Amino acid sequence: METILALVDELYEDMELWYPKYRMEEAGFKVILAAAEAKKLYHGKHGYPCTSEAAFQDVSQKDFTGILIPGGYAPDRLRRIPKVLDLVKNADAEGKMIAFICHAGWVPISAKILNNRKVTSFFAIRDDMENAGAKWVDAPVVVDKNLITSRTPVDLPAFGKAIVDWYKK
Amino acid sequence: METILALVDELYEDMELWYPKYRMEEAGFKVILAAAEAKKLYHGKHGYPCTSEAAFQDVSQKDFTGILIPGGYAPDRLRRIPKVLDLVKNADAEGKMIAFICHAGWVPISAKILNNRKVTSFFAIRDDMENAGAKWVDAPVVVDKNLITSRTPVDLPAFGKAIVDWYKK
Repeated sequence: METILALVDELYEDMELWYPKYRMEEAGFKVILAAAEAKKLYHGKHGYPCTSEAAFQDVSQKDFTGILIPGGYAPDRLRRIPKVLDLVKNADAEGKMIAFICHAGWVPISAKILNNRKVTSFFAIRDDMENAGAKWVDAPVVVDKNLITSRTPVDLPAFGKAIVDWYKK
Repeated sequence: METILALVDELYEDMELWYPKYRMEEAGFKVILAAAEAKKLYHGKHGYPCTSEAAFQDVSQKDFTGILIPGGYAPDRLRRIPKVLDLVKNADAEGKMIAFICHAGWVPISAKILNNRKVTSFFAIRDDMENAGAKWVDAPVVVDKNLITSRTPVDLPAFGKAIVDWYKK
């Protein structure tokens, strides 16, 4: 069974966490809601509640086969946590799937994994993505090897499908 | 293409609207966000915004091939609108898919279509469902001919799959 680490913090974009979570569960995946603290209530940008299941400090690479990073302003917080950057950097080195949408690109930027990678994002952070060496394109979903990216909640149908399809290959 | 009428009002359960909407879009369906007023901003129970696309008064049976009713407290408002009850009652008479989750059962109760139908719902309204003549069961998703029902957001992976699968038959 695929096990996906979903990275949560305050102000995560509500649908960008829960839509892929439920979509992956439909496909039989397990999704672990991971945050700085375990069993803590976090709130989406629009207020949707999320109680974390695991603390970053207790997670190791063997615990998951992919990472999901929702947007909103949570990524601005997540990128400050060294363990988060280690998890993302090592997952990329191992070729594990890393799916990120909207503002979530800030996390892989700080994990320094975007040089020469083809990605998309919310348009506001396009400069940040390109300054990190990424090749930015404007598309509902972009798949570059193990990286799956989308722009906004409107892209979620394509984003969810791309994640599930990635594991079928 | 399948076209689904999603019934929206204030305090709709955020995920119970948006998860099925995006899931059906992944499957190629069109989802029309319908409410008492068109182009009006409604808010989920947790605050997620939804701008309606169509007004109930402008919708006719030929415009859609199925109905989605999210839970939250929106159903308590939707059941007061005669046109909503007409749409649901006539859709049922025509055998169109009607998917409802959580507290959304209040709407088909008032449309008087639940007698002898096998359904589930959020447990708090089980009495209302049974008093309307429904056979209530406790399961993630229940499909009885054209009716597809679930209990809570945790059931959304099964609910979304059941909706998409229904149209494959």
